[in-house]
Amino acid sequence: MTDHPSKTLAAFAANLQFDDIPEPVVRRAEDLLLDWFGSAVAGACGRPVQLIEAFARQMGPADGDCEVLVSRRKATPLFAAMVNAAASHYAEQDDVHNGSVFHPAAVVFPSVLAVAQSLGSSGRELITAAVAGYETGIRIGEFLGRSHYRVFHTTGTAGTVAAAAAVGRLLKLTPEQMLDAFGSAGTQAAGLWEFLRDAADSKQLHTAHAAASGLSAAYLAKSGFTGARRILEGAQGMAAGMSKDANPGRLTDRLGQRWALAETSFKFHASCRHTHPAADALLQVVTKHALSPDSIAGVTAFVHQGAIDVLGPVVDPQTVHQAKFSMGTVLGLIAHFQCAGMSEFDRYFDDARVAAFRGKVDMVLDDEVDSAYPERWLGRVAVRTTDGRVLNGRVDEPKGDPGNTLTREELEQKALRLAEFSEGASRTEMQAAFGRIWDICRTEKVSALLA
Amino acid sequence: MTDHPSKTLAAFAANLQFDDIPEPVVRRAEDLLLDWFGSAVAGACGRPVQLIEAFARQMGPADGDCEVLVSRRKATPLFAAMVNAAASHYAEQDDVHNGSVFHPAAVVFPSVLAVAQSLGSSGRELITAAVAGYETGIRIGEFLGRSHYRVFHTTGTAGTVAAAAAVGRLLKLTPEQMLDAFGSAGTQAAGLWEFLRDAADSKQLHTAHAAASGLSAAYLAKSGFTGARRILEGAQGMAAGMSKDANPGRLTDRLGQRWALAETSFKFHASCRHTHPAADALLQVVTKHALSPDSIAGVTAFVHQGAIDVLGPVVDPQTVHQAKFSMGTVLGLIAHFQCAGMSEFDRYFDDARVAAFRGKVDMVLDDEVDSAYPERWLGRVAVRTTDGRVLNGRVDEPKGDPGNTLTREELEQKALRLAEFSEGASRTEMQAAFGRIWDICRTEKVSALLA
Repeated sequence: MTDHPSKTLAAFAANLQFDDIPEPVVRRAEDLLLDWFGSAVAGACGRPVQLIEAFARQMGPADGDCEVLVSRRKATPLFAAMVNAAASHYAEQDDVHNGSVFHPAAVVFPSVLAVAQSLGSSGRELITAAVAGYETGIRIGEFLGRSHYRVFHTTGTAGTVAAAAAVGRLLKLTPEQMLDAFGSAGTQAAGLWEFLRDAADSKQLHTAHAAASGLSAAYLAKSGFTGARRILEGAQGMAAGMSKDANPGRLTDRLGQRWALAETSFKFHASCRHTHPAADALLQVVTKHALSPDSIAGVTAFVHQGAIDVLGPVVDPQTVHQAKFSMGTVLGLIAHFQCAGMSEFDRYFDDARVAAFRGKVDMVLDDEVDSAYPERWLGRVAVRTTDGRVLNGRVDEPKGDPGNTLTREELEQKALRLAEFSEGASRTEMQAAFGRIWDICRTEKVSALLA
Repeated sequence: MTDHPSKTLAAFAANLQFDDIPEPVVRRAEDLLLDWFGSAVAGACGRPVQLIEAFARQMGPADGDCEVLVSRRKATPLFAAMVNAAASHYAEQDDVHNGSVFHPAAVVFPSVLAVAQSLGSSGRELITAAVAGYETGIRIGEFLGRSHYRVFHTTGTAGTVAAAAAVGRLLKLTPEQMLDAFGSAGTQAAGLWEFLRDAADSKQLHTAHAAASGLSAAYLAKSGFTGARRILEGAQGMAAGMSKDANPGRLTDRLGQRWALAETSFKFHASCRHTHPAADALLQVVTKHALSPDSIAGVTAFVHQGAIDVLGPVVDPQTVHQAKFSMGTVLGLIAHFQCAGMSEFDRYFDDARVAAFRGKVDMVLDDEVDSAYPERWLGRVAVRTTDGRVLNGRVDEPKGDPGNTLTREELEQKALRLAEFSEGASRTEMQAAFGRIWDICRTEKVSALLA
């Protein structure tokens, strides 16, 4: 038996060809790239992002071939990937794969963009590499399981190997070298949730570290630096150290047939994911019946228990961040602005009208919604109008999930809102970048997105 | 209760003053610095070290204030610390703290040397910072315990926080900032033993990663980047994720009274540690009785079970690395050259005389030796001479342990042998560096060791 899961997965990542990837998956990869780009630009205003950028300037070269999106300077691949990754997760608007609880874009795209710009790779090579990163990272997240996620930030840990797979593909590693890259990446994989209870800045460090360490692992492998051959499933590997319920079968689950990238969700609202189904259902009612906020007497959101656990305690949010966990605030923003994006939260989370709307909202545990969760996130609201009607909203898949995905226009609008919020790029610059991204598969040599 | 172990330890590291450190501990720190320097120079010939140096050249700036010992170029602190740390562990001749199974020098000194050269710190500041790193890292290794070491390479994990503590002290972090640095370091801590079964290059990556990540954590903390406050003992911290038998009491064990740095052992022979007690005992006999190799008919080494487990299978070593686990080879080198250093292994591990001597050596499990282990590593041999005598050698503490430490002359000789082996520096250069090291506490501004 010469094959084992790490080896099979590494070989898949090394051998993946653009023509192997179904056309809808390629299109979705382009969508995810554009969505990531907006999130990375949104990080420009983040203090922790700026601190990592300053560290990169202090330690790295003054110039390079790779763009640093948040500062508009150029750097070597290591530092461009590090800073862009730090920026990607800041606004909490980047994509998520539900089953693996892994945010692939934040670690994969910063790495492939930097390396493609350094090597002069084609857009098809960039997309192929990104797909290799998504397919690898998502499967590793699923493999490491729930026990891992309880203590470790999967985007930091699985993300390190995902970045290595993506960069390794661009570097055209052989399957053996890719296995070395996995070994060197997995043995640097890190990221603990402990920072959450102190609201510390570690989330940005985790993505920066994953992209930088994964990239390093791939470059080292290319030069002949060897790594453990069973870093994922071995007796002293990642799962042995960091999981109690690892399932090696997930590592090689339908490679080349199941495209995990296409299962990845976009985040639409700039709030806690538990608020999204109800927000979508209310938006449906408000739009369909052209309701003004004043015509709404009350809203009941029918939710799963998890939503009550997480959102229930937040009755009087004091900060933007807390407001993202307040169902009343989210629904108030939807009622007033038909949107709960970064700008709406920043400007209106404590607006008197929105605060007043919170008193009109209640959450009720619903059997149907609760039993469907977590496979499906059902949105159910009942809206009582001041003229005595009861209007029901029903959304069976939150906006952004694969079955209710965002159109390219919606993705562009989201990215424009993010850029406007962070002041990271002008509308004209963003639109020029959108053109480059939609054209990526016809691009011979990837250059700057914010030229 | 506002205090907790992470905070207490961070405050100790931040507040440590040169004048707090007993004079013998300062002297021992100088000894450890010189011993580390020899090991780092020894890494010059290592392929994995050269590959990490090439990566640093590719990604980092062309110049800087900090010396890279193995390539004689200058770099920024990040890259100098990274490459020098990769070099430090290569020859496996760097120091070890028995109780924590942690190799402090390999991660602490590369970090403090680079940062001191960058800041223009004094030698006393460098020594104070190194002591802060040793005291922190050793206690974290003890805290993480045996269950951690079974899967994780403690020098990689605890080493990341040790590097952060040392660099943080040089950067004059406040106690609060030092706690942030611990948080950012601990959440990047990594290093798995899986590479061992493939003899992969990860050991050099682990020390490089620990030094680079720890240094990054300290610089980020200085700039205001926050970290988890209980990264060591918290519910989702290092021990929660990576240990089953963590003992938080070890983190703050007699801070300022017990100097763990002074418990650190030097490695004398260039072989597996399990061979050292017998090698010392044989050297005692050979020296005392002026025995030539030909006058030795046989040697019985009385050993603990662990030695038989590890060394027993190695009967006919095929490589230098294997020979370091062959008791017969080690005792053969001692008998012929009174030394089992890097050069002796490289030149003579398969020399016909040494190979023949292997047949004269046997190991016997000894009750006294076995029951003393692992607290004490007793050396017991019986040497049978060709003229019919039986000469017994007894060493109660292997050479290099605190109670049988190396003299400064022996440390210099060891470093000279390492430099000669790697061709990393000339005898003259090494001797000039020794002068700088012995003079460190009178140095106003730390400059290059290999000027």
